[in-house]
Amino acid sequence: MTLVSRAPHAAPPAVGDELLPRLHRELEDFLARAPDTAPELAGALADLVLAGGKRVRPTFAWWGWRAAGGEAEGPRADAAVRALVALELLQGCALVHDDVMDRSATRRGRPTAHVAFATRHHRGRWAGDSRHYGDSAAVLVGDLALAWADDALVTAGLDPAALARAWVPWRAMRTEMIAGQHLDLLAGARREESLERALRVARFKTAAYTVERPLHLGAALADAPPHLVDALRSYGRDVGVAFQLRDDLLGVFGDTAVTGKPVGDDLREGKRTALMALALGLARTADRPHAARLLRDCLEGQGVTERTVAEVRELLRDLGAVAAVEERIDALVASAGQAIDRVDLAGQAGPALTALAAGATGRHR
Amino acid sequence: MTLVSRAPHAAPPAVGDELLPRLHRELEDFLARAPDTAPELAGALADLVLAGGKRVRPTFAWWGWRAAGGEAEGPRADAAVRALVALELLQGCALVHDDVMDRSATRRGRPTAHVAFATRHHRGRWAGDSRHYGDSAAVLVGDLALAWADDALVTAGLDPAALARAWVPWRAMRTEMIAGQHLDLLAGARREESLERALRVARFKTAAYTVERPLHLGAALADAPPHLVDALRSYGRDVGVAFQLRDDLLGVFGDTAVTGKPVGDDLREGKRTALMALALGLARTADRPHAARLLRDCLEGQGVTERTVAEVRELLRDLGAVAAVEERIDALVASAGQAIDRVDLAGQAGPALTALAAGATGRHR
Repeated sequence: MTLVSRAPHAAPPAVGDELLPRLHRELEDFLARAPDTAPELAGALADLVLAGGKRVRPTFAWWGWRAAGGEAEGPRADAAVRALVALELLQGCALVHDDVMDRSATRRGRPTAHVAFATRHHRGRWAGDSRHYGDSAAVLVGDLALAWADDALVTAGLDPAALARAWVPWRAMRTEMIAGQHLDLLAGARREESLERALRVARFKTAAYTVERPLHLGAALADAPPHLVDALRSYGRDVGVAFQLRDDLLGVFGDTAVTGKPVGDDLREGKRTALMALALGLARTADRPHAARLLRDCLEGQGVTERTVAEVRELLRDLGAVAAVEERIDALVASAGQAIDRVDLAGQAGPALTALAAGATGRHR
Repeated sequence: MTLVSRAPHAAPPAVGDELLPRLHRELEDFLARAPDTAPELAGALADLVLAGGKRVRPTFAWWGWRAAGGEAEGPRADAAVRALVALELLQGCALVHDDVMDRSATRRGRPTAHVAFATRHHRGRWAGDSRHYGDSAAVLVGDLALAWADDALVTAGLDPAALARAWVPWRAMRTEMIAGQHLDLLAGARREESLERALRVARFKTAAYTVERPLHLGAALADAPPHLVDALRSYGRDVGVAFQLRDDLLGVFGDTAVTGKPVGDDLREGKRTALMALALGLARTADRPHAARLLRDCLEGQGVTERTVAEVRELLRDLGAVAAVEERIDALVASAGQAIDRVDLAGQAGPALTALAAGATGRHR
């Protein structure tokens, strides 16, 4: 009886139809009109943000706007779409800087920005260290993306009161995104193993940044009353954490064709997820020291072979960690549904948000 | 007959008196009211921006505001001061990210952000590579500074029309700052030697970012007419390049007590300055291959000892490169003076800008 299990039977509205083609056009338009003084960096940014991505954040923001009575069409709606370009540019910053920190080699099926710049340096036999050059240039691409995100919001053509309202969640969100990334770094460095810490990272890095604040932003643009903002944010926190938990499962069990990442990549990277924290706790409770050691080796990135990956996958099921995470996802999605059931949502926002929750957290995401 | 040589005889107004104590208060106040979700990163940023610095950019911006008739006191002036906090935060981003790229160990007499974070990692015996952790955390401190810079401008309490006007130079400036840093990286990587390339970096990285756009921003806040904006920007470009040329000289000949950097640091770092480009050109013209080789070794950072530093300093004078740079500084300051002599400047802005040009480009900076 959760929204996830109901989803396949419902007929979800095409939640992206109102937004996605217009968003892509506005994104292209913004990039074309941006200052032309940093062409190489801007090119790297455009390659990334126009290459796709699911536009999760603008989609949630759009339905926050619609839920609070924002129009689907007309000049105010057009300005709102232009404002949401900011979310994709901010995500561009997050991705490029994260990739430097995580030393990731590919993104959206292509070399990451820092790898592309390092390759150019290496092929040109330029002076100095190629990797350091690549990292440095990628830091600048991310800086450009962050500055341009704010440009997109300020120059979207919002009326001044709407811009002032939107800046409240926007301000909180950028700091929360950066804080979440720092918590993630710290978790790895300090070898944190607790479920509480893993969920704290999920709350900042995914829930606030990916769902709660985008909804808040959209609702603020439409001047939503406080009780509606509260309901949307409550839904956003729950769906956001559930989204991260699904991500944790997909990072271990996901199909490469769907996730675009090698199977078990999170295990090889030693990612400190809630799934791993739960499994470690269960291994301790069940007094299985061998299991605990295997999980901890994985988190330390020590000798993780294909065989380890297969063993750990087996272990995660066997310990009941997978089932526990699935249960938690179901509970979060149910509580998210209750939060928005208590308020009146305009437009098609009710069914859209229900479908989005299912889509973002379901097994076939 | 240049402004530099005149300066000691003039009685320059105390150009910082109107601004600096208020700016420091507003900076403290902004940091105290900023989101508290990233305390460790925010602490590192506060340590840096409250530790001092000459507040060059806000000072030029303030005199752009005053030149265009902006009041010294009252609510509009207070909002303008709060807006200028943005410039110091943006500079915080530039410094922290530059220090990562340049691998600098100290800044304003203290360990740089990336070094401080790496030290914490190392002392805590945390997992992974200390340097990579330090660099990553510093990238996040810079991101926070960049986001907060925009927050400072948007939430300064400007009237909406003033904010919209200010965003034009602000938008250009942030991109130019990032572009300048990229050009600087490229110059090192591609072993660029031409004067033209060195001056191009100076135009973006110093002239636009440090003088021209801050003046433009201040003037835009005060709704300056286009001919005044043009004159101030023209002054700003000239003073900005002269400022960088003085910096080049100080980086080689400067007194450690004044510059806060070891004597000849630029030579040890292989900095590709206009001074070095000029010297190389003069060595070639004079057919002095040994001199050219010595200069080039310096740029490549090959075996630069104390003795090399002393030799190169001698050589820079001997080739006439120092005299050529001094001449160029004088000519730029003179042309800057002419640009603002042609327009009416309000308040004490005329003498203030004259004193600022002398101060920023003079031998005793």
